Amino acid sequence: MLTPKLDHLIKQLQILPSVGQKSAQRMALQLLSKKRQQGINLAAALDIAMKEIIECRHCHSFSDDEICPICRDSRRDSSLLCVVESAADVMAIEQSGAYRGRYFVLGGHLSPIDGINADDLHIDELIARIKNEAISELIIATGSTIEGQTTAFFIHDAVCNHVTKITRLAQGIPMGGELEYIDSITLHQALQNRGSL
Amino acid sequence: MLTPKLDHLIKQLQILPSVGQKSAQRMALQLLSKKRQQGINLAAALDIAMKEIIECRHCHSFSDDEICPICRDSRRDSSLLCVVESAADVMAIEQSGAYRGRYFVLGGHLSPIDGINADDLHIDELIARIKNEAISELIIATGSTIEGQTTAFFIHDAVCNHVTKITRLAQGIPMGGELEYIDSITLHQALQNRGSL
Ligand SMILES: [Zn+2]
Ligand SMILES: [Zn+2]
Repeated sequence: MLTPKLDHLIKQLQILPSVGQKSAQRMALQLLSKKRQQGINLAAALDIAMKEIIECRHCHSFSDDEICPICRDSRRDSSLLCVVESAADVMAIEQSGAYRGRYFVLGGHLSPIDGINADDLHIDELIARIKNEAISELIIATGSTIEGQTTAFFIHDAVCNHVTKITRLAQGIPMGGELEYIDSITLHQALQNRGSL
Repeated sequence: MLTPKLDHLIKQLQILPSVGQKSAQRMALQLLSKKRQQGINLAAALDIAMKEIIECRHCHSFSDDEICPICRDSRRDSSLLCVVESAADVMAIEQSGAYRGRYFVLGGHLSPIDGINADDLHIDELIARIKNEAISELIIATGSTIEGQTTAFFIHDAVCNHVTKITRLAQGIPMGGELEYIDSITLHQALQNRGSL
């Protein structure tokens, strides 16, 4: 017989990935007993993030403003474009520290079996961007899964007449691995050893 | 180079127990990509809980109102009083389903070495409550640590003239416990308190 607001908080905390009943309960009680102000701060950060973070109009990564900090940063090399499936992949590559170019987030990978076709991703926009910008190298960093590789070949075929150098992250990323779960060192090596597609 | 509101959210999520940088990042990205409305609901539940949950005036457990649902529930046995260290202990006992009496939360255990004396806990209030109410059994369910036991003896000595029956949770082998991993003191007590099969 829990007091309703505590019961509700414990249920809500379980929307977080890998948080079950037991951890949710521990989280709620620890915040209530010792970290009320920090809990209020977390609630505010969460509310603001959910309501105000948008997709960058230029690369489709998460952004506070219309154009994200990476697209705005004039120190980054605009002739390098790295295509990834998700904003989580952008974060993983950024954390490897091995890349100083631009990004483009597809919003997923092709998967005809799940009904995900080129129209469901930002592929047309990517092709238009490649045609309009002076890109010296396109790095296709989709996942090392069957769908990620299918997506890579699809993009390669669509743009190979418009960009001379198209590369792919080096193998070293284990087969079946999703980018966002790969450690920084492996990502670093995969970026450095990238080869022609 | 993360967009500031996302960076802030990832930092704030790490106030949660056993949430590090990697899990905080995974939580933030999953909420942003797929669960925005649920994230907003969690933020609201958290904010309300931190600002509005108070201590029950009667038992010091967490409560939405001045008196908590357990203290208000007329179906519970008011002649049984169980003394625990924290509101988390109340939840654990409630979840066992084995108890239908009332509770009293001390707010910790005696620990002179850490400067925690009787004045820092609700011990005077507990003694007053025992003197005022018709309690047939006082169950002292403080922790099975040195401090928990010291606290149990202190309470016992203070109220033994006012209540006939004072009990303590049975000590023994936990369910699923392998004998070879149980400490000697627990084994000693489990042997001394052995019962018929
Ligand atoms: Zn951008
Ligand atoms: Zn109460």
